[in-house]
Amino acid sequence: MSDATEAAFEAGIKLGALYHQFVGTPVSPATAPSVATAIEQAVALQPCVESVRVRIDTSLMVPNAFGYSELAGKMFDVEIVTRVRSAVCRAQLRLDGDYPLMKIVECHEEP
Amino acid sequence: MSDATEAAFEAGIKLGALYHQFVGTPVSPATAPSVATAIEQAVALQPCVESVRVRIDTSLMVPNAFGYSELAGKMFDVEIVTRVRSAVCRAQLRLDGDYPLMKIVECHEEP
Amino acid sequence: MSDATEAAFEAGIKLGALYHQFVGTPVSPATAPSVATAIEQAVALQPCVESVRVRIDTSLMVPNAFGYSELAGKMFDVEIVTRVRSAVCRAQLRLDGDYPLMKIVECHEEP
Amino acid sequence: MSDATEAAFEAGIKLGALYHQFVGTPVSPATAPSVATAIEQAVALQPCVESVRVRIDTSLMVPNAFGYSELAGKMFDVEIVTRVRSAVCRAQLRLDGDYPLMKIVECHEEP
Repeated sequence: MSDATEAAFEAGIKLGALYHQFVGTPVSPATAPSVATAIEQAVALQPCVESVRVRIDTSLMVPNAFGYSELAGKMFDVEIVTRVRSAVCRAQLRLDGDYPLMKIVECHEEP
Repeated sequence: MSDATEAAFEAGIKLGALYHQFVGTPVSPATAPSVATAIEQAVALQPCVESVRVRIDTSLMVPNAFGYSELAGKMFDVEIVTRVRSAVCRAQLRLDGDYPLMKIVECHEEP
Repeated sequence: MSDATEAAFEAGIKLGALYHQFVGTPVSPATAPSVATAIEQAVALQPCVESVRVRIDTSLMVPNAFGYSELAGKMFDVEIVTRVRSAVCRAQLRLDGDYPLMKIVECHEEP
Repeated sequence: MSDATEAAFEAGIKLGALYHQFVGTPVSPATAPSVATAIEQAVALQPCVESVRVRIDTSLMVPNAFGYSELAGKMFDVEIVTRVRSAVCRAQLRLDGDYPLMKIVECHEEP
């Protein structure tokens, strides 16, 4: 199998992992940046990660009676780049309609 | 990008997701089968999953003072098959030395 | 501090734990019973738990484009009874308006 | 039931919740502070929380082959103070022997 396929596998692992690790975390517009930073740092520790950027869309928060929200999948805006040898994969987690979609943006082997 | 690469991405998503969703769950040898079944059913709902098999290695459980363990990554023995159009990817989560390794077993496009 | 207070503390631990362990799990009406059973068995392993009953309100599921939902806090209908020595605490997690509320139903010391 | 009992229930909820939300997060000595801050901010949003302090004991980390660890229950050193009306409850999550124990330190009603 190709290095590009392995890089895509690694990107999928990280997106699936961060989603299910952090969904449900109490969050507010004020705390979203520190949650995003914590997620970025957690992902960056894992193998094959070249870069990761996490934003939490605070406009999708609907505060409950106590004034906060829970981190929901649809709030994620994540881009990750993984590398396996000469192959690089760029993937995203981003709201697509109603669904927080994970997809490959591009995956290529460097010459 | 190839269908095989996409199938690998989907397999990675599911393995990363189940790991981080369920790690930390209180578990014992007696309850491990129902946790494994719940995980299998959760994964099977997700897109592109052809089949998934989850076993929890109860021999790795070290009961705490109250007689139970927490589901740890190293206890997972998972095999998943994903499909994207004509491509099929078989991947595993299984202890490799001390590390619960996720890896592609094979990934191919059907003729 | 009283045994009743400790029993309430233990009930709170279990409700907070199950909520944040399982929120985000892919679920459908067909798989909800096995998820509920897995949660009940996980909670029952923990100290001070006399009984626990978990139901998942499938009427609150809004299937995504792929036909499944994620377990959300508002779907939980949980009742737990904890015991610390002679004190018994009965507590619930149940939707109250828009908020999945955890509350003590009763807490008393047996004579 | 007394306000002190309710305050203890609220403290239990928060400790159970943070434990099961964050266990499994990839962590290293370098990233532990930002994870601890994110946890503190998440807990502080929830009702009845007067204060919360989270430390992650990096000395208990055993790096895997890739140089990082997963946040484990035994690494937590947490103190939380909850209030319900005139009652205040101080509780901890801290390693006790081999078990990450949650316990009430004191719970009293102010005069």
